[in-house]
Amino acid sequence: MLGSTHGTLTTDSRRARVIACGEQPGPAVHGRPAEVDDLDVSGRTLFAAVPDLDRFFRPESVAVIGASDAEGRPNTGITRQLLAWSERVGARLHPVHPTRPSVFGIPCSPSVADLPEQVDLAVLLVADPLPVIEELAEAKAKFAVVFASGFAETGAEGAAAQARLATAVERSGMRLLGPNTNLNAFEEFRDDLDGPAIALITQSGHQGRPVFALQELGIRLSHWAPTGNEADLETSDFLSYFAERPEVGAIACYVEGLKDGRSFLLAADRAARRKVPVVAVKVGRTETGARTAASHTGKLTGADAVVDAAMRQYGVIRVDGLDELQDTAALLARARPPRADGVVVYSISGGTGAHFADLATEAGLNLPRLSDAKQAELHQWIPEYLSVANPVDNGGHPVGDWRGQKIIDAILDDPGVGVLICPITGPFPPLSDRLVQDLVDAAERTDKLVCVVWGSPVGTEPAYREVLLGSSRVATFRTVANCITAVRAYLDHHRFVSGYRSPFDSAPRTPSPSFRKAQALMRPGQQLSEHAAKQLLRAYGIRVPREQLVSSAAAAVRAAGLVGYPVVMKASGARIAHKTELGLVKIGLTSASQVRDAYRELTDIARYEDVPLDGVLVCQMVERGVEMVVGLTHDELFGPTVTVGLGGVLVEVLRDTAVRVPPFGEEQARDMCAELRGRALLDGVRGRPPADLDALVEVVLRVQRMALELGDDLAELDINPLMVLPQGQGAVALDALAVCR
Amino acid sequence: MLGSTHGTLTTDSRRARVIACGEQPGPAVHGRPAEVDDLDVSGRTLFAAVPDLDRFFRPESVAVIGASDAEGRPNTGITRQLLAWSERVGARLHPVHPTRPSVFGIPCSPSVADLPEQVDLAVLLVADPLPVIEELAEAKAKFAVVFASGFAETGAEGAAAQARLATAVERSGMRLLGPNTNLNAFEEFRDDLDGPAIALITQSGHQGRPVFALQELGIRLSHWAPTGNEADLETSDFLSYFAERPEVGAIACYVEGLKDGRSFLLAADRAARRKVPVVAVKVGRTETGARTAASHTGKLTGADAVVDAAMRQYGVIRVDGLDELQDTAALLARARPPRADGVVVYSISGGTGAHFADLATEAGLNLPRLSDAKQAELHQWIPEYLSVANPVDNGGHPVGDWRGQKIIDAILDDPGVGVLICPITGPFPPLSDRLVQDLVDAAERTDKLVCVVWGSPVGTEPAYREVLLGSSRVATFRTVANCITAVRAYLDHHRFVSGYRSPFDSAPRTPSPSFRKAQALMRPGQQLSEHAAKQLLRAYGIRVPREQLVSSAAAAVRAAGLVGYPVVMKASGARIAHKTELGLVKIGLTSASQVRDAYRELTDIARYEDVPLDGVLVCQMVERGVEMVVGLTHDELFGPTVTVGLGGVLVEVLRDTAVRVPPFGEEQARDMCAELRGRALLDGVRGRPPADLDALVEVVLRVQRMALELGDDLAELDINPLMVLPQGQGAVALDALAVCR
Repeated sequence: MLGSTHGTLTTDSRRARVIACGEQPGPAVHGRPAEVDDLDVSGRTLFAAVPDLDRFFRPESVAVIGASDAEGRPNTGITRQLLAWSERVGARLHPVHPTRPSVFGIPCSPSVADLPEQVDLAVLLVADPLPVIEELAEAKAKFAVVFASGFAETGAEGAAAQARLATAVERSGMRLLGPNTNLNAFEEFRDDLDGPAIALITQSGHQGRPVFALQELGIRLSHWAPTGNEADLETSDFLSYFAERPEVGAIACYVEGLKDGRSFLLAADRAARRKVPVVAVKVGRTETGARTAASHTGKLTGADAVVDAAMRQYGVIRVDGLDELQDTAALLARARPPRADGVVVYSISGGTGAHFADLATEAGLNLPRLSDAKQAELHQWIPEYLSVANPVDNGGHPVGDWRGQKIIDAILDDPGVGVLICPITGPFPPLSDRLVQDLVDAAERTDKLVCVVWGSPVGTEPAYREVLLGSSRVATFRTVANCITAVRAYLDHHRFVSGYRSPFDSAPRTPSPSFRKAQALMRPGQQLSEHAAKQLLRAYGIRVPREQLVSSAAAAVRAAGLVGYPVVMKASGARIAHKTELGLVKIGLTSASQVRDAYRELTDIARYEDVPLDGVLVCQMVERGVEMVVGLTHDELFGPTVTVGLGGVLVEVLRDTAVRVPPFGEEQARDMCAELRGRALLDGVRGRPPADLDALVEVVLRVQRMALELGDDLAELDINPLMVLPQGQGAVALDALAVCR
Repeated sequence: MLGSTHGTLTTDSRRARVIACGEQPGPAVHGRPAEVDDLDVSGRTLFAAVPDLDRFFRPESVAVIGASDAEGRPNTGITRQLLAWSERVGARLHPVHPTRPSVFGIPCSPSVADLPEQVDLAVLLVADPLPVIEELAEAKAKFAVVFASGFAETGAEGAAAQARLATAVERSGMRLLGPNTNLNAFEEFRDDLDGPAIALITQSGHQGRPVFALQELGIRLSHWAPTGNEADLETSDFLSYFAERPEVGAIACYVEGLKDGRSFLLAADRAARRKVPVVAVKVGRTETGARTAASHTGKLTGADAVVDAAMRQYGVIRVDGLDELQDTAALLARARPPRADGVVVYSISGGTGAHFADLATEAGLNLPRLSDAKQAELHQWIPEYLSVANPVDNGGHPVGDWRGQKIIDAILDDPGVGVLICPITGPFPPLSDRLVQDLVDAAERTDKLVCVVWGSPVGTEPAYREVLLGSSRVATFRTVANCITAVRAYLDHHRFVSGYRSPFDSAPRTPSPSFRKAQALMRPGQQLSEHAAKQLLRAYGIRVPREQLVSSAAAAVRAAGLVGYPVVMKASGARIAHKTELGLVKIGLTSASQVRDAYRELTDIARYEDVPLDGVLVCQMVERGVEMVVGLTHDELFGPTVTVGLGGVLVEVLRDTAVRVPPFGEEQARDMCAELRGRALLDGVRGRPPADLDALVEVVLRVQRMALELGDDLAELDINPLMVLPQGQGAVALDALAVCR
């Protein structure tokens, strides 16, 4: 498949890279939306088509291969459910069975070839779907669903069978859901609910069940795609499709593994452009989880930190629990964009307000202090001794008159307030019934977000079941934590999409002039010497110290004169690790005699330690700055990635690093630095000047350019340390490791 | 009050410290349980009596001061509730009102003096309780409850009124609950529920409501103490009392602030000795929360990291949300001690199992791989292609026969398994009804813990409401996160209490010989010079470099000869900060001439920078190790605390420190080091040898001894850096800062 979305280069794209060569490194700004044939400089596609799944979800004709109405057969229940669903969606159902004349009174076709019409959708309930797929292709069916299991999830043999199935499907032009899937797409969706809906994508039917059950709480669901083993249609296809559907307010996903990293990014990019929130549970936080998930669906899980970063780059909201998935997706689907990011807590108890404020502030929500004028307004209806600064403590919501409404309206009227949250820890009907009704009524009058946390563990109270769940304008939660998670996601989502610019629009399509220089330095299958690795960096405009590679003491002294004293001397060779520990680095050499001595000592140690040298590096000594590391590695799912971290002990002991998947823009490069726990080092500590953050960001972007242009040929690149000098003075790669593929 | 539990020293105890002086520094092991008059060397009590609250919760006679039956008066509702409660608990109720002849048909006493009998409990519904308290003291009432608000929570004036109330109560011998409390202690507790109960302590009535509502889900509650402003009875009193009650299985607390740190520690210690789990929400994670909580009850919140550490030292389980409080307390109250710490996940879907395993592993639960023999056993009933290693994927629980029971029993039968968890994401009655019943039945046959996560957000399903909530043996959760939190707390609690040794039993009661030496060095109100601070450390057996304080270049050269080359030289003075930045430190001096030059340079800089010196320190140069910091600071709630952290950039940028409240034992000192995020540095990185952890722990314990003996006179002590040398070589305090009070 040309224009492949997969992580490996096609021959064509490799050739293209060598021919076209027209720009400087750094983020190229094309600004042109990608088209079908567009590839970036790495040969990866910049465009993913949206599959037309209308006829999958709303077919006019459905064939059920292996239909049954015999008592006790599993296929009988499935056939019955498909029959009911076909009736609901107005599709003609055609059972296929080699021997039965009819199923549930509907005449059977003995084979696919005998079907009375070309079908939109064929559901295969047979154990061996491959021959049927071939018949369906012949019969020009549009979609097939394969229930059978025993494919990639069972090991190598199953994976081979799945590959045959995929090949047959690809040849046919038909699209396939499954194998190892189920009936979830054909469930009964409530059609009495209004407003934006949640579309659901799950790789396990059971894991989607609680989100689907939100219907019973009055939250609309529009679709459910149970993707199973994804021999053809994958999570990303449904993501793209749902992002284009007008009725979809949010997409909720349960993901165990992804079939292809790039197609996921493109789908997430589409959702971000369309401002459709995507909320996802992704298994694989731990080795255990990743291993178990992989054995469940036979898909790649990717390094969790990379998955996490990739999701954040495209605004995908990752949550851990299915309950968070429900609550966050429900809020994001239904709430209008915020008018401000201020959150006000309204409570009937100072304790409840304090507790909520504590947790909300810790989670990063902004609880602004209300203005004196607003507080004075609230004190018309709330006794003076209660604090109304935010949290607003009403000391017991007024139930006898209109004051409760006035208070809520006054809070919502504040231009700095985007969200009002009322935590109700337990029902006290004389008070909470009126409070709940006032909140529901106020929510109807405002376009701001009104949230209630109904804290009672019981959940059978009428104020909850009837009043709160009966309102589509109030977002109701059962726990403070989920409310905070969802509101945070809501504010973050809208902030993200309002400033979103797709990195695919500006991704470089042609190699930079650096590329040709770099290519000459590559040594397939080998680790480059420090000197060669630094030349590679220089090719991409990354500053390295002045240095010369020498092979005699006399040459070292000459080199030192050219480089300028003081100098650093290092043993150089293709396979030297732990130079410092071995004593193969000498710093602060200030005279010819010291250089001569150092040359002798370094070569002696190398001989003694049996380290082959290609020479000794005489390098400019760089003054002190902040030691960072910038690197390039490969992820099984997303291909080359770029990492930045704090150097020295911080990266070794705390692994304080941030990662991104190319392509990404300057803003993401800045975010990477901001994510580091030790970022304060860059601001300057102990009276040191702030470091040159712009230079660091520039190095990150240049390494990204290397990842895009050389990534598939470069197994690993590690600049360690990158010395980031004080502001305005740049950054210098003091050492580098590069391993070619 | 002598034998005070408060954080300040009494005159008597100060004197005692100077007279008795008999031990070496380090943790003294007395091993004798404390008695009423026992004080530790800091003058703080080692013993807290348990108040006898039997007659508070189960009085025989109750007076209601300000009783009413007039329509529309708030006191009428309260009187009615107290009347009903008195009937339930079998108490005689006596209304008191100056003018009414009777209330609800019960004859009124016109004043407290006219009460027909000495009452166990008086409930004060009057606005100004002070005069009534005095009358009640006269009438020998045992307990009073004051509802009135307007005390410490309103500011200085209210705090003064509260202090007067407290004084009156203290004089009387009566015990007081409140002011600013409510009726929660006198709620209706279900008496049809068996087994261990939750006792509840809350500083806000609303915040206790959801825990109390657990009764409606079949979980027994035994007590509720709404402590309000704690003018007398405080959280700690109820904690101690509940820890001694046989019916209490767990204590759930909602705490905004504590009245006194020490009494809280002693109460938590009592619960730990009695193996009674304490689960607590403590507001104050953030400044916002702390401030709001303080204004709500007028209590101290303490530095959050210190509160956190203090709770962990005594095994108090801190949770964030009220829902976690409910779920964790309910599990800990009812579950029998674990027989093993292995957790097995049993699920009807590989996806559900993988997801649960991922989150559980990340939370630190141990999910052991089941033995091959056990797996073979399970495969008798579960198809071969499903993984039963753990998670056990049953591919759909068998419902037609006895196999489901066999599977569950076989898992529970494994000696490595202490907990079985079955996450059920959604109801599918033909399958889940039988699964739930099988789990409930199996739980009856085992003393191991069986947990179910009922993931449906609906919660009205009979399998949940009737079967699961009907079982007192199955722990049912609504979210995976809360299940994991509670199971983790359950295993942690039992591990903690089984190895618990009270630090109060071995807390030093008399000063060490070090104390007298140290006292001579203290300079009240002043910061000590580096040299004096190091002498203080030496007095407590903490190693410092050989060093001499000199005041001439010639003396410096002589000192260097005695100390031994190479030497470090430092300007010394009482008020020098940032020595290194100012150039007031010279390292690696190897000759007399270098020492002479350094002396001149240091004194020149000091003159130029206008830094007064008391001389120049000539110090032994210490080889490289791991730089740590060990310090002593004061917490408003808990008094002197001991901190350990990684030195250099780690402590400055990442604040990677651990803190403990004395007294604590060696194990806690080791835990402190293990808590550090950068702890791997101590194990040796980049080929460095492991550091002398024992020496570090010893320094922490010696600083603790300083905290105990000098803490109230020492505002701050900061050893930075403490150079921890390779294993077996000790640790040396290279610099120290000490500020006396």
